[in-house]
This record gives sequence, C-alpha cells and structure tokens, in this order.
Amino acid sequence: MPKSRAEAITLDRADPLGAARAGFHLPQGTIYLVGHSLGPASAASLERVSAAATTEWADGLVGSWNTAGWIDLATRVGARIAPLVGAGADEVLVCDSVSVNLFKLAAAALPLARTRRILVGADEFPTDQYIAEGLAGIAGANFIRFAADDMAASMASGGVLIRSAVSYRTGEIADMAGFERRAQEHGTLIIWDLSHATGIVPVDLNGAGARLAVGCTYKYLNGGPGAPAFVHVARDLAGRLQTPLPGWLGHARPFAFEPGYEAASGIARFAAGTPGIISLAALDGALDAFEGLSVATLAEKSRRLGDVCLSRAEGIGLEAILPSDRARRGGHVSFRHAAGYPLVRALAARGVQADFREPDTIRFGLSPLFLSFADIWDAMDALADVLSNGEHEKPEFKVRHKVT
Amino acid sequence: MPKSRAEAITLDRADPLGAARAGFHLPQGTIYLVGHSLGPASAASLERVSAAATTEWADGLVGSWNTAGWIDLATRVGARIAPLVGAGADEVLVCDSVSVNLFKLAAAALPLARTRRILVGADEFPTDQYIAEGLAGIAGANFIRFAADDMAASMASGGVLIRSAVSYRTGEIADMAGFERRAQEHGTLIIWDLSHATGIVPVDLNGAGARLAVGCTYKYLNGGPGAPAFVHVARDLAGRLQTPLPGWLGHARPFAFEPGYEAASGIARFAAGTPGIISLAALDGALDAFEGLSVATLAEKSRRLGDVCLSRAEGIGLEAILPSDRARRGGHVSFRHAAGYPLVRALAARGVQADFREPDTIRFGLSPLFLSFADIWDAMDALADVLSNGEHEKPEFKVRHKVT
Repeated sequence: MPKSRAEAITLDRADPLGAARAGFHLPQGTIYLVGHSLGPASAASLERVSAAATTEWADGLVGSWNTAGWIDLATRVGARIAPLVGAGADEVLVCDSVSVNLFKLAAAALPLARTRRILVGADEFPTDQYIAEGLAGIAGANFIRFAADDMAASMASGGVLIRSAVSYRTGEIADMAGFERRAQEHGTLIIWDLSHATGIVPVDLNGAGARLAVGCTYKYLNGGPGAPAFVHVARDLAGRLQTPLPGWLGHARPFAFEPGYEAASGIARFAAGTPGIISLAALDGALDAFEGLSVATLAEKSRRLGDVCLSRAEGIGLEAILPSDRARRGGHVSFRHAAGYPLVRALAARGVQADFREPDTIRFGLSPLFLSFADIWDAMDALADVLSNGEHEKPEFKVRHKVT
Repeated sequence: MPKSRAEAITLDRADPLGAARAGFHLPQGTIYLVGHSLGPASAASLERVSAAATTEWADGLVGSWNTAGWIDLATRVGARIAPLVGAGADEVLVCDSVSVNLFKLAAAALPLARTRRILVGADEFPTDQYIAEGLAGIAGANFIRFAADDMAASMASGGVLIRSAVSYRTGEIADMAGFERRAQEHGTLIIWDLSHATGIVPVDLNGAGARLAVGCTYKYLNGGPGAPAFVHVARDLAGRLQTPLPGWLGHARPFAFEPGYEAASGIARFAAGTPGIISLAALDGALDAFEGLSVATLAEKSRRLGDVCLSRAEGIGLEAILPSDRARRGGHVSFRHAAGYPLVRALAARGVQADFREPDTIRFGLSPLFLSFADIWDAMDALADVLSNGEHEKPEFKVRHKVT
C-alpha cells in the first residue's frame, strides 16, 4: 500500500496498463471516477464515429449496409465483447438497451422455466425490477420481489430470475457458478445483468454454466453515451428460444420481405429493429482498448486502485459499503455519508468526478485503463481536504442537479 | 410536364426548395433515389454528430446529461418532429426502433380495445406483421392477418390494428381520417406506422383523430443509419396507457432509484432504456433542414418529381404500380419489371441509386430536399438507355448482394 504520493507514482511506473491511458481523451485536471456510469471517449472511438458518419454514411450512403458491413456490425461487435464475459463469439449480440434486452430474454426463458414466475431481488437495480414487473403483467406470470437475503428460498420454486453479476450499490460480485447450480436444480433460469461487471471483473459465463445474460456497454467498456447493450445466450439454448420482439433483423432472411416470421438460427434472432449505426460504431472503436488484454489484468489493477482508496478512506473515517466477503468486491467502491450529495459536488469543483446514489451513497468507479494510483491518491487527498475544511457545507453544493 | 432536360432545368430554377440541396452531402455524380430507405447526410447532421462526440462526450463526460441536455434530448427532438405529423410538441417522443415502439404501443392499447385481437394486413410491412404476431403470442391475444381488401370487415370486431400511413410497396397514402372514424365506431384502436410518410406526405394525426403512431426517422427525415424511431400518443390518452417495457427513463423520478415503477406523466412513460445519444444527435441535426418548411411544400415538389418520373416511364413502356386512386400517391413510385434486380444494379453502375424489393419491384424515392427535376430527367434517361442497350443483362448485375 502506498504511504505517499511518491509511492503511488512508483506503482504507476510499474503498471503494465499505464500506457493505455494515452488512448483516452480526458480533460486536463480531471480525475474521472465515474467510468462505471459513463466511460470516457478514446481516440479510437472518436475516429470510428467520424468514419461511420462521413466515410460510411455521407459518402457510402445506403450501400454501406454492404460495403461498410453495417448489416453484421452488431454481430461483429458482439463477438468482440464475448471473450470479456467468457462466452463464445457466436453467443453475444449487440442490440437495443439493457431494459429491452432483459424483457426479450426473460420472456423467451419463461416457457422453459418450471413455473411461470419472474423473480427479482428488492435490492436489484431498479430498472431490472420495473422490467420484471412489466413483463409479468403482460405475460400473465407471477411477479415475485424477494428480500435481499431470501434469494435462495425464492429460487427453489422455479421461474426466471433476474440478477446483477455485480451489485450497483455495494459492488459485490455474485457467485455465478453457485447460483447457477442451485437454479438448475430447481428449474429456475437466471438472466445475469452484467452491466456493472463487463470489462472490469472476470466474468466466465460458460465456465459458470450461465445460460442467459444482458449487459451495458457505456460503463467500463467506454462505448459512448447510450451505446447499445448486448445479449448473451448459451449456444445450445438459442435455437429453442422465441423472442417476443421479432423484428426484421432477427428474421432468417431479413431481405426476403416475407409476411411470416422465421427466426434466424442462433442468437441473431434476438435482433429486432435497425441498430443505431453511429452509436454502435463508437462502441466498436472503444473495444480497441481491450484487444489483447485479459479481464483478469484489468480486475487486478482495479482491485489495487480500490485498496488504495479504501485504505485512505479508513484514515479519514469514511464508512465504506463493502460485501460481507471482501474478496467479492467488484470494480467500484461505495461510501455512505449523510452529506453524500454535497460532498460529490464539492469534489467535482476540485476536478474529482464521483457519483451519488440516493439516499446517501458516494461511488468511486475504478476503471483501470485510464486511472493511475496517483489519481486515486490525489482524489483521496481532495476528499480529506473537503471534509476537514467543511467545503461541502457551502449552499451551492446542496442544489440538486437532475443527474449526478 | 418538361419535354426536355432544358425544361427540367427551368423547373429547378423556379423551385422554392432548390437551395436546400446545398445543405446535403451527396457524392459527385450520384442521383440518389433511395431517400425512402436511408436519407443522406446533411452538413448540419454531421456537425451535430461531431459536437456530440467531442464537445459533449469527450470533453463534457457524464456531466453532459445536464450541461448538454442529454437527459431530455429525446423529448426535444420529438417536439421537433411533432409539427411534421400534425401532433402537439408533447405528443411525440423519440426512442428505440420502430419494431420496439410498435410492440410498446400495441401492448399498451390492447386493454382499451373492445376485443383482445391484434389485426394486421397481409400486405403490411413485414416487420409490422412479425411484431403483431410476437405480441399476440406473449399477451395471449388473437392474431388476425387479414387479406388486403378485407380491412374494413376485420376492423368491425374491435381490437388493435397496425397500419402503414403510406404503403412501402405501392406508395399509397391511407385515408387516415376515414379509417379512424370506422375504427372508433367499432372499438378498434389503430397504430399508424408513419415510416414511409413522415416528412414527405402531409400527415395530420390530430386532424384525422388518430391516437397512436410510430415512425422511422432515417428515411425522409435523413436522421442517419438506424437513427432512433418515434412514438406518438394523443395527449388525452397517454396517461391511461401502461407500457409493457417500463425502463428507468420512463419513470416519474428516474434518478430517485425507487424499486417500484411509477410512470412519468404523459408520453415520457414510453421511454425505456438510455437512448443512443450520438445517433440521436445525428437526427437532431438532420431536422434543421425541415425548420420553417411545411410538409405540404415538400409533398407538392415530391409529387411533381413523381409526375415527371411516371410520364417518362410511360414513354419507355415501364409498368408503374400505382394506387387505384392516383391522388393518394405518396413519396415514392414503384415499377414492376421481371429483371428488376439487375436493372437496379445497372442503374447503380451509372450513378443512379434506386432500390429493389422482392420479387419484382423497383422503387424510386422522391426526396424533395435534395433531388432536382433534372436529376429525375437524367435518371430516366439512364433507365431508358439501360433498357434499350440491354445493359442489365450483363451477368455481373445478376449477382445478389445481401442488401439492395
């Protein structure tokens, strides 16, 4: 553990990921601890956006569906995400939003579950709860919102369970293999939400026996604001699932314009409408930063950044929200503070960007591709200063923005 | 009707929309008759993409949700589309794809219809048929695919009907007010698909008594490849509808992170996940071209371009597919030809881009913002040449691309 800024810099000099930072655009003087909310832009991503807009759309026009490969871009970008989550290249497809994808997979999984129940934890990411309830309503399934410590019991009656691989609040990494074993014993299908896990903690979908997952690409993958999400379906399962949203792009022959729907073989059937190509191109470019890297390397550095953060937090008396098993800590660390919101605003005024979640949680995202040990040292210095000076008590920091 | 290229140029000189063309990026030597499939890029749209990627994302980072107004961009862009379809600014929202939006609106409308039936014509755009069938499956509703001439009878038993305002094949404009009158008599709710209508034929949703609609923005609105679609819900109806896809962005308080869903008031409830901001920005920029223009002006020029096209087609013996009431012709004209595919390829080799739809239909999209009368004259010259030389019989033009 570094005892000084100089020691933090020594760690940075030995960091095998140190060179990656040069590929990102980060404004001078900003320490960006919000990569778990919206990752920053890389030069490769910005170049890819520009090429998609000018060379492909403006110059290539509609012909770019063929010549620039727009028609299978979502498939190719999915294949690039696959190794980051322990899936085969043909098991991941980029499409729609996490919300829409959760709906598609949960609806498709219902007929295969032992009971028509949709299960979600009361501590689960709110959108996932809304979607589960919305689907249960239209599909005539039972909606079960279980208490956080009641998951094992809830699974025992079968159904479709939606579960985050990393908790958005505590950062806890779920025991994917353990839950899968139990679920499969009871005729329960789990849909993993990988939003806070992808690209930051090692996820081994196939190794854990996971069958279905969705994930977000604008957090640790740095795919750009509102970049399209992804779905994962295990190879042997894809052909048995029916999407509730059969759009033209998921048809076996999308250009035959047949009145009847015939699902494409494999995961391609989960495509619905036309993807937003320019947003998808931003994600494609962003994935360049992950080429040749193992998630284990990323996770290791992220974990060490978190160690520095937690160690210094302890020194200034800040209360961390940690999983009971500290070894299961994911890519962000959270703190509880009654003045959480104004603290985050006061930090921002010093160039340290963190985020706040109701009612009292401060989150620091520890993206290993662009953060250094010195960044974390400096951020914690700033936090210590703000707290000791009472800077966060200034009225201007208490006025709520719509988004933090 | 121009009798020569010189006369076509005379028409161009008098064209009040002639100046709009300079705002579009079109490669030298291209006559682009595929604006009904993918509109071309305008300079304003390309600039907006660049600003969203660099100034907003790269420099502004997550703060751009507030500072660049990303949080309500979909609402603001919806409000810009509203006057083009005869709706109030608070009655249109940009979100997701046409497929997903059809699903959302049809599911939401089902409880309000007299019977649980989902109706769609066998001549309807194929995706719309797939979505209708997919929704009926999951919602336990009856799926009715009716023969093209059987629509009136099918409506008489109530239900939710999906109908294009302009047929993708014949270009026929539906009698929206007439259908609405009949539908409302019988407890049928119509969801209008405005994909081939928006920005090219006058659509007056409120005037026609229409309640629900969806539409595509990358055709005549030139919003960019896969630009997000829109939904329209009549003001008095929005609060009574429940979306089957309740994502965080449609919540009454999206940033409160409440476990229970409470729908936003009005059309905002039809937002689901996070929109692809860069693709949405492209659409925002594209709409600059429509500022201060009435759709009637656009439709009038498009119609006159079509008149020139049809008159010359008659001269070369090409069979047009026209609505029985020729006054109901929309923004594109279609021709039937056994060698449709190679003809389109041979035209492309001469710089004239048209498109082909199975089994034998050639379509010419007549976008009035960037096409001139001379363009149409030249395109028809090229077509006449190709036909008289038998150029389309070259083997290279018979090889199928994935997309045409």
